[in-house]
Amino acid sequence: MNGETSLTIGIDLGGTNVEIGVVDRTGGVLRRASIATEAAQGVDHVIHRLVDAIDGLLREHGLSKRDIQAVGFGAAGPLSHTKGMIYSAPNLPGWKNVPLRQQFADAIGLPVVLENDANAAAFGEFIAGAGKDARSIVMLTLGTGIGGGIVLDGELLRGDLENAAEIGHMIVELEGRACPCGQRGCLERYASASAVAERLVEAVQAGDASSLSERIQAGDSITSKDVARAAAVGDVSATRIWDEACRYLAVAVINVQHMVNPEMVILGGGLSGAGDALLTPLRAHFERLKWSAASDFPRIELAALGADAGIIGAAALARSA
Amino acid sequence: MNGETSLTIGIDLGGTNVEIGVVDRTGGVLRRASIATEAAQGVDHVIHRLVDAIDGLLREHGLSKRDIQAVGFGAAGPLSHTKGMIYSAPNLPGWKNVPLRQQFADAIGLPVVLENDANAAAFGEFIAGAGKDARSIVMLTLGTGIGGGIVLDGELLRGDLENAAEIGHMIVELEGRACPCGQRGCLERYASASAVAERLVEAVQAGDASSLSERIQAGDSITSKDVARAAAVGDVSATRIWDEACRYLAVAVINVQHMVNPEMVILGGGLSGAGDALLTPLRAHFERLKWSAASDFPRIELAALGADAGIIGAAALARSA
Repeated sequence: MNGETSLTIGIDLGGTNVEIGVVDRTGGVLRRASIATEAAQGVDHVIHRLVDAIDGLLREHGLSKRDIQAVGFGAAGPLSHTKGMIYSAPNLPGWKNVPLRQQFADAIGLPVVLENDANAAAFGEFIAGAGKDARSIVMLTLGTGIGGGIVLDGELLRGDLENAAEIGHMIVELEGRACPCGQRGCLERYASASAVAERLVEAVQAGDASSLSERIQAGDSITSKDVARAAAVGDVSATRIWDEACRYLAVAVINVQHMVNPEMVILGGGLSGAGDALLTPLRAHFERLKWSAASDFPRIELAALGADAGIIGAAALARSA
Repeated sequence: MNGETSLTIGIDLGGTNVEIGVVDRTGGVLRRASIATEAAQGVDHVIHRLVDAIDGLLREHGLSKRDIQAVGFGAAGPLSHTKGMIYSAPNLPGWKNVPLRQQFADAIGLPVVLENDANAAAFGEFIAGAGKDARSIVMLTLGTGIGGGIVLDGELLRGDLENAAEIGHMIVELEGRACPCGQRGCLERYASASAVAERLVEAVQAGDASSLSERIQAGDSITSKDVARAAAVGDVSATRIWDEACRYLAVAVINVQHMVNPEMVILGGGLSGAGDALLTPLRAHFERLKWSAASDFPRIELAALGADAGIIGAAALARSA
């Protein structure tokens, strides 16, 4: 390697694990590592472990910090990209108002960028994934909640208060299901991976029939994958709940279309693992619900990078450090 | 006047009248004129009349075309800013695929910009109206329909297919009232000036009591102003419909907040003439429905420029011609 610093490091700071990647200009992940987060042991501890892990990763592959231009972090918010500060993070217990960008830059001696993890994933898909040939994309990460990211003409839309693209909290059902955020009827209460599983448990507890009833009554926890599988073999309750998730997602895509008019809407996160079982009914609902006043329809596609989207996006965003 | 061309002309091309303004850098309207559109007599006729009206207006005030930098048009869409083309306009009968920018530039000998009228109004409020101290605004024009405009960091958000900010067609009530656009449950079917009047007529026809029943049964047409007045004196049906309009607008503001996170949401158009009777219940619904996860709330304000927003915005956009 010469000192041309064509590489950056992308870090996906999760509650359980931290994923680290050495990424090239095209979004290719050349080297990777994964360590336990151990967030409860404090910020200094995590930073120390991360610096060690990065040093080890580079050394192992004959690289040094001089080959690295900058480091990008994706983390759960609320956080400020501009201030480089994590205000609080539900998955990093005890982290309050952590100036992570500055602390990590001091520890590693490289420029650092901090970004919301859903934004980082969207940027990753834009640079190197499903959206790599699009000018503008909106990404929905369908996991425990629903994260959103909006990339318009190559730039993340962050918003005046750095909280844009919180698409999981779009209200799609007025006075609908209560959300921990304080609203009712948020998209993520119907179409996140967690919500799909939770709604089936509620339906069974309310007396609806389902092939999953026995497992639920035995106290087993079920996942959105169980619901998808049950729906695929004709379970009536699972089919209804899965279909409603797709319908609410179609409404969200229509509202995204009318608001920011992107070329493409990309679906990632756990629920998107269902593939065509998600995409086909979602597109069908979209066709049924969409307008006829113009043909400004976004393409609706699955994410292409899986769990790598976060590190690839964070690494790409690091180039602006 | 010297030839410094610090002035531009803004034109609001309506179905009945065309408003013309000579506007300075600060958004001040120095001179104005209004002529009947006569759209049915064809594009050439309208262009000819407009050029004459502008010549007359300039001459009257000791100005010449050399004092004018460019001309901006706001018009109802669908249209293309990029191509300078009106595809079709519900209020300009017979106008199909009209390359207005080029045709008008040839006729008047000045650079011309074409913009969606709701975008132009939003840009006007951003430059010189309620949003003049804000970095980013979203404007809703509550008229026959609901137009939208989004200005982020001083730039109109037009979208990949030039149809962004169609906020009137955000779905706020799943499977709700049918909209001529082909969707159901669009915001404008509940909260436009027309929808508020229409819903009261429907309620009376369905047997609901209202102080406006006699007028409605006599076949009088009623307006949103009638509904607002009736609601103000305790008419139950009018109060319910007015309050629902405010509630749906609050949902729209929340969805705008989560999508683009602007500093301010501005309400213009006919319905906003109700002033505090609109703003107070809308803000109350917003307070009740909003999230508690962060405090990234837009200010909700009334537009300040009235019908001038369109010409001021069009004139300001002309500066980028």
